Amino acid sequence: MGKALIIGAGGVASVVVHKCCQNSEVFEEICIASRTVSKCDALKEKLQGGKTKITTAQVDADNVDELIALINKEKPDIVINVALPYQDLTIMDACLATKVDYMDTANYEPLDTAKFEYKWQWEYKEKFEKAGITALLGSGFDPGVTGVFSAYALKHEFDEIHYIDILDANAGDHGYPFATNFNPEINIREVTANGSYWENGDWVETEPMEIKRVYDFPEIGEKDMYLLHHEELESLALNITGIKRIRFFMTFSERYLTHLKVLENVGMTSIKPIMFEGKEIVPLQFLKAVLPDPASLGPRTKGKTNIGCIFKGIKDGKEKTYYIYNVCDHEECYKEVGSQAISYTTGVPAMIGAMMVMTGKWKKPGVYNIEEFDPDPFMDALNKFGLPWKECHSPELVD
Amino acid sequence: MGKALIIGAGGVASVVVHKCCQNSEVFEEICIASRTVSKCDALKEKLQGGKTKITTAQVDADNVDELIALINKEKPDIVINVALPYQDLTIMDACLATKVDYMDTANYEPLDTAKFEYKWQWEYKEKFEKAGITALLGSGFDPGVTGVFSAYALKHEFDEIHYIDILDANAGDHGYPFATNFNPEINIREVTANGSYWENGDWVETEPMEIKRVYDFPEIGEKDMYLLHHEELESLALNITGIKRIRFFMTFSERYLTHLKVLENVGMTSIKPIMFEGKEIVPLQFLKAVLPDPASLGPRTKGKTNIGCIFKGIKDGKEKTYYIYNVCDHEECYKEVGSQAISYTTGVPAMIGAMMVMTGKWKKPGVYNIEEFDPDPFMDALNKFGLPWKECHSPELVD
Repeated sequence: MGKALIIGAGGVASVVVHKCCQNSEVFEEICIASRTVSKCDALKEKLQGGKTKITTAQVDADNVDELIALINKEKPDIVINVALPYQDLTIMDACLATKVDYMDTANYEPLDTAKFEYKWQWEYKEKFEKAGITALLGSGFDPGVTGVFSAYALKHEFDEIHYIDILDANAGDHGYPFATNFNPEINIREVTANGSYWENGDWVETEPMEIKRVYDFPEIGEKDMYLLHHEELESLALNITGIKRIRFFMTFSERYLTHLKVLENVGMTSIKPIMFEGKEIVPLQFLKAVLPDPASLGPRTKGKTNIGCIFKGIKDGKEKTYYIYNVCDHEECYKEVGSQAISYTTGVPAMIGAMMVMTGKWKKPGVYNIEEFDPDPFMDALNKFGLPWKECHSPELVD
Repeated sequence: MGKALIIGAGGVASVVVHKCCQNSEVFEEICIASRTVSKCDALKEKLQGGKTKITTAQVDADNVDELIALINKEKPDIVINVALPYQDLTIMDACLATKVDYMDTANYEPLDTAKFEYKWQWEYKEKFEKAGITALLGSGFDPGVTGVFSAYALKHEFDEIHYIDILDANAGDHGYPFATNFNPEINIREVTANGSYWENGDWVETEPMEIKRVYDFPEIGEKDMYLLHHEELESLALNITGIKRIRFFMTFSERYLTHLKVLENVGMTSIKPIMFEGKEIVPLQFLKAVLPDPASLGPRTKGKTNIGCIFKGIKDGKEKTYYIYNVCDHEECYKEVGSQAISYTTGVPAMIGAMMVMTGKWKKPGVYNIEEFDPDPFMDALNKFGLPWKECHSPELVD
C-alpha cells in the first residue's frame, strides 16, 4: 500500500512501529524520525527483518524547514505525529507545505500555558481543505477510540445521544508503593487542575478532584474515579448533535492521591528551585530522580485497564442506555510489544487511524476529529489489532 | 553560690542558659562553650546584664584534652552537658580528670550503632566514686522528670509500685502540613525502630508502632499514642524495686505518620546517596532542606504538651492508681525564653538537676540516675521554675 513517516520514538511510537510491522500490507515502508536518532535505530534494530521496510532519520520537530526537507526526501503517504503535543503545529505546517496527510494522538498545547484546546488546530481547517489533504486529530484511546465509540453508538444504537460518561480505569499494579506512569509533573498537574464537564451548552468548572464516584468496572471491579477535564469533551460536545451532558472520569487510588498530596505538602513537587549545597535544585526534578524510572514499570505491571463510554439517549422513541469499552491487560501488552497497556492503548489506535487515512476510508480534505468519520472500519480494526471491544445494554450508570 | 560550665549551644542549651539567669543565686556565673562560639556569643548577648555573669568559650566536645583545658581554665562547680549524646563519655572523662561534677539530659549513643543504653555510662560508677564526684544522668523531662515523678510516687503514694506507664503527648500545632521538631532523621528512626517494654524482669520487643492506644489527656484531649522504647525504662526497671511492668507511649498524629510513611515509600528518607546531575546527594539531606527549618517552628507553634506517669501499686495493703503530669504551653514557653515546649521541658529540668548537685542536695560520689535521689526538692523546683505538676488519684488507665 504505502509509506508512513512516524515522528517520535517514545513509548507510544514504539507501539505504533510494532503495530505497523504487524500490518505490512498497508505499511510497506515506515521511516522513524526523532531528535535522538539512536532511539529510532534501536526500534529499527528490534523490528527489521519483517515485510515492512524500516528506515530512520534525525529531525527536530520544532523546526518546520527540517520537517519539510525530511518529508520531501522520504515522500511518505502520511505523517504519524507521536512526538510532543507542543509540536503539532510545526508538523501540520510541514504537511501543508508538502501536501501530505497528517495524524496525531493528542491536541496542541502551547509550551508556555500548558492549556490544551483544539482551537489552534481547528484554525487549520480551511488550509487543509485548500491543500486537498486530510488531518486526523486525536487518534489515540482517549481522545480517539472514545470518539469512535461515540460515533458508533450514534450510528447503530441511538437516534439521539443525550448523555455520555467516559470512564478511564487503570487497575495496573507495578508493585511499588508509589510511581507514576508518565512524567510525574503531568500526573501532578492532572490532579491539581480544576475539572470541567459540558452541560446544556456550557462548561461547568469544578474544584480539583471535587467530583468523586465509585464505579464497578467490568473485569476490574470497584474503583474510585474522579471527574477531570479531558480534551475529547471539547470535540464531542460539538460533533454529537443533541448532547446534553458529557463528562470524563479517571480512576485514582486513595494511596496514589495520598502520596501525591504528601509530596505536594512537603514541597517535593515544587518547580521552584531551592539552594542545596551551593547549587540550585528543583525539588520536582530531584523527586523524579528518586522515584522509579517510568520506563522500568512496563515489565513489572500486572492488571488491566478498562476504558469506555456509557451512553444514555433515545432509540425509536424510548430511553436507552449502552456501554462500550475495551479491557486491556498490562502483561499481555508487554509480552506482545514490550510496552504496558498505557502506551499500547494509545499506539494501536494511532496505527489504525493512519491506516484509515492511507487506505482512503477516511480521506477527506480538511481537519477532522475522529468522531466525524464512519466508525465501522475502525471498530473492526480494533478487534483485529489487539483492542477488542465489548458492549453492555444494561450498564450501571454514573450518577 | 557557684559557677556552671554549659557545653552546647542548641535549643535546650538556650533554655538552660535562660533558666540559670533566672536563678542567679545559685548560678552566679556560667560559661557557655560549644564548637561554634558565635552561637554562645549570641546567647550571651541576649542574656547578659542580669545578675549572672556570662562568659563564652570554644570547645570541641569530642576532644578530651580540649575539654580538660577548658575546665581547668574556667574552674566550674559543675559541667552541664547539653551537647550531643555522642559526646557524653568524652565529657565524663574530662570531669574525672579535673574532679568536677557532671550532669546530662540524654544517655550515651555510640555514633556508629545509634543504639542508646546506659551501660557505657554506668561503667563509670567506680571511677566517679573514687574521684569523689557526682554524675547525674538524664536530667531532662523524659528521661528526667519522669524518674523524679516515679521516685516521688514511691516515697509518698505507694508502698510498692507494680506498673508504670509513661505518657508523652505533644498537641502542638505549627500550622505546616508536615514538619519535624528535631532532626527528621531522629524522628524517622523513632517510628521505624522496634518498640519494647519491661515486663516481669525481661524486655518484650514489639514491631515498630505495633502497640497503639488512644488516651484522653488532661487539658489536651484524645490522642493516638504508640508504644516506643525509651531510655528511662532501663534505669527505672532497676531502681523501682518490685516493678512488674513499665511502658512508654508517645503521641503521633495519623497525619504525621502518613507523611513519614509516604516519604519513606518514595525513598526520600533514605541515607543512601543517589546520583543527581552528576553529584551524589543523600535524599534525606535534600528532604531536610525542603522541609521547614525546625528552628522556624518555635514562634508559630500553638498548643500544649502533657508528659507524665501513671502508676498502679499497693498502699497500706490496697490497690491504688496515681497519675502525675505536667502540662506545658508552647506559646507561653516561647514568650518566656524564645523556645517552644519541646526544648523548654528538657532545659528546665537540666538547670534544676545542676542546681540539686551544686547546692549539695544531690551530691554523692558515683554515677546516678535521677530517681536514685530524694525527689522532694526537685519537685518543689519544678513548681517554682515553670513546670508545675498536677496529680490525679483516679486516672484513666492504659490497657
